[in-house]
Amino acid sequence: MSDPLRLGIAGLGTVGVGVVKIVERQAELLARRCGRPIKITAVSARAKGKDRGVDLSPYAWEDDPVALARRPDVDVFVELMGGADGPARAATLAAIAAGKDVVTANKAMLAIHGQSLAETAEAAGRVLRFEAAVAGGIPVIKALTEGLAGNAISRVMGVMNGTCNYILTRMDSAGLSYDDAFAEADGLGYLEADPQLDVGGIDAAHKLTLLAAIAFGARVDFNAVALEGIGSITIEDIRRAGDMGYKIKLLGVAQRTGRGLEARMSPCLVPSTSPLGQLEGGTNMVVIEGDSVGQIVLRGPGAGEGPTASAVMSDVCDIARGIRVAVFGQPAHTLDSAPPASAASPACYYLRMELADKPGALAKVATVLGEAGISIDRMRQYDHPGDNAPVLIVTHKSARANLDTALAALPGTGVVMGAPVALRIEDV
Amino acid sequence: MSDPLRLGIAGLGTVGVGVVKIVERQAELLARRCGRPIKITAVSARAKGKDRGVDLSPYAWEDDPVALARRPDVDVFVELMGGADGPARAATLAAIAAGKDVVTANKAMLAIHGQSLAETAEAAGRVLRFEAAVAGGIPVIKALTEGLAGNAISRVMGVMNGTCNYILTRMDSAGLSYDDAFAEADGLGYLEADPQLDVGGIDAAHKLTLLAAIAFGARVDFNAVALEGIGSITIEDIRRAGDMGYKIKLLGVAQRTGRGLEARMSPCLVPSTSPLGQLEGGTNMVVIEGDSVGQIVLRGPGAGEGPTASAVMSDVCDIARGIRVAVFGQPAHTLDSAPPASAASPACYYLRMELADKPGALAKVATVLGEAGISIDRMRQYDHPGDNAPVLIVTHKSARANLDTALAALPGTGVVMGAPVALRIEDV
Repeated sequence: MSDPLRLGIAGLGTVGVGVVKIVERQAELLARRCGRPIKITAVSARAKGKDRGVDLSPYAWEDDPVALARRPDVDVFVELMGGADGPARAATLAAIAAGKDVVTANKAMLAIHGQSLAETAEAAGRVLRFEAAVAGGIPVIKALTEGLAGNAISRVMGVMNGTCNYILTRMDSAGLSYDDAFAEADGLGYLEADPQLDVGGIDAAHKLTLLAAIAFGARVDFNAVALEGIGSITIEDIRRAGDMGYKIKLLGVAQRTGRGLEARMSPCLVPSTSPLGQLEGGTNMVVIEGDSVGQIVLRGPGAGEGPTASAVMSDVCDIARGIRVAVFGQPAHTLDSAPPASAASPACYYLRMELADKPGALAKVATVLGEAGISIDRMRQYDHPGDNAPVLIVTHKSARANLDTALAALPGTGVVMGAPVALRIEDV
Repeated sequence: MSDPLRLGIAGLGTVGVGVVKIVERQAELLARRCGRPIKITAVSARAKGKDRGVDLSPYAWEDDPVALARRPDVDVFVELMGGADGPARAATLAAIAAGKDVVTANKAMLAIHGQSLAETAEAAGRVLRFEAAVAGGIPVIKALTEGLAGNAISRVMGVMNGTCNYILTRMDSAGLSYDDAFAEADGLGYLEADPQLDVGGIDAAHKLTLLAAIAFGARVDFNAVALEGIGSITIEDIRRAGDMGYKIKLLGVAQRTGRGLEARMSPCLVPSTSPLGQLEGGTNMVVIEGDSVGQIVLRGPGAGEGPTASAVMSDVCDIARGIRVAVFGQPAHTLDSAPPASAASPACYYLRMELADKPGALAKVATVLGEAGISIDRMRQYDHPGDNAPVLIVTHKSARANLDTALAALPGTGVVMGAPVALRIEDV
């Protein structure tokens, strides 16, 4: 049996502690599978004295993660601190400079600095792995980078923020308002310190950025993701969408189109009977479509100590086994800097608006839509106690620009009360 | 860029032709991802002159796959002939002896000879890869071997024969009898030359054998799989199971229990609302449960030119990238030869029987069940035009031995007409 692979772990929150537990509990199994023992030599975190439920005394302690990253008795620097900049990035760069491989769960750092970090690591002959950064325990980075390497990928989609899916599921199943479901998720500790990371779609967009780079050989570019959170979704929309056979999900989609690479993170309608539509609670799902394979669906826990640590260990085991793949599946300097698509690909849209209850109101709306080139697939008008009539429209496939023209013109009809809601229906 | 990786492909059926197409169509993409070109140097099949829809003239032709396997201009022998023995095995052994790596889609060969082939390959320092042998395009071998390497696996389950799932789905959705659904699948060319490979569960059991070896570090042992096909499933059972909220699937299950490694391939009931229950038609699904990750579900096309060739290319790309992992995730000689479990783990069972329509009939059945230690969770008696009353029972969790005792005693009551049907309800 070869020399042990020696880990230095920076960050001892939930995931870091999970990794320590696996390395200790599965020592024999890991050695058997990897052909060499995996051991922890040193750890680092902010508070040395804190009780984390595991005995850290066997490991050297470093207050400074950069010092940890440079230790001669560390082969792999495991970065689990989080944060796009600051200590995480500094220590990652220090580790690469010191000739260490790096495993990280840090989606923010990679979405924002992944391009330069990957180029730096590859120039130094080091690997930088991040299975845990996307969709928790689902081995989706490996599936996309290696398992589907023979495919030209046409689309990658996913529900990758468990907190948003929990909120939307609770609104649907318990009839909660957005605010109440948000408060419930907050009470359960599901929300990030800055909740916009979750409900604003930022966290999920970080993940989509990484998937898009691998899938399409595109440069890592978080700013290319068109971003819309779930804060404007109402219980009304969830109910109406349900009536029409849809669920509302915060869905990330990256696809190669004739107009460039399109990447969106936004609330979308998907058929209730589709795998994405059936996804409830905190579970994640990633759908990958390739020219040869067709459609592959991967589903699993998107967060939590065990699942995320499992993903970290997948990367660690790969390194122990000598598996070395380019960070984003091909050398980072060869990633394509093709400009992002100028407009979203055409789609059917769900429109909800309140109409003044007077003769000809619906005709005026239909006229505006028709003049903008939007044709109507289905329409429903609901019973209404008040003065305004809730109207629901599902359009045929339309360009977003045409829809925007119609949305801009609708208030001018004088019959549409408030702002219409428009949500994309994703073809899944 | 390094030297090309040179493939010799033996077998030019659907999958072989699919591999040729990918290597040609995606040459640039593959080279970019793998860091070196992938090219085909030689091919072999039974009929040289046959029109396969691809131009094979650029490649050397060998009538004898063993000669192909030994060619000095072949780095990787791609075995796509099929058959557990004969030319496939002979050529695989020849390739290993000649210092080639091997990629195969041959589940029968691996389920039966995988242990010795893996030991031979590993002693020679060669890799033997088989992503395409299990669940078509789903990268499940990679997910299990590498993506979840940090987990002690507790259970692997799967619907891995698309033909059986197609037949069961058609019985359910179109109300076809088993014979009619079978004939329809046959007419569509879905059945193997020996249909027992499909409907007898043998093909799926081959796949389960391979998953079990990886998941549990167990020696490859096809004979350890308890095997039952779908031939006895009636439309009646599908309807009744549906009434109770279940679907019937040909489900493979391998799990570590206190009594050893349990491996079964048999028709089982699963909740209609579960991912497995919702799986329709020829799609495959594999569910993997690990101590850290929880449950991962993988879904995708289980057969066909593109998906299977995609899986073959995943292995080829791994070899091109220098990824070398033990055939079954740890050296084959270290695989455990622990005896298989002596009995299936306890489960709830679905029982269907016809009772003579006379007073006390049900009481007699309940007595027999109770005496065997089987307690009843739910029971339904259906309207019946004839003399016999169809009765459906869902038991509480029971040992199979107790159930068998009850099944043996039921005819003695004089009120049970014909043989009762008993199907396991898998906890998914």
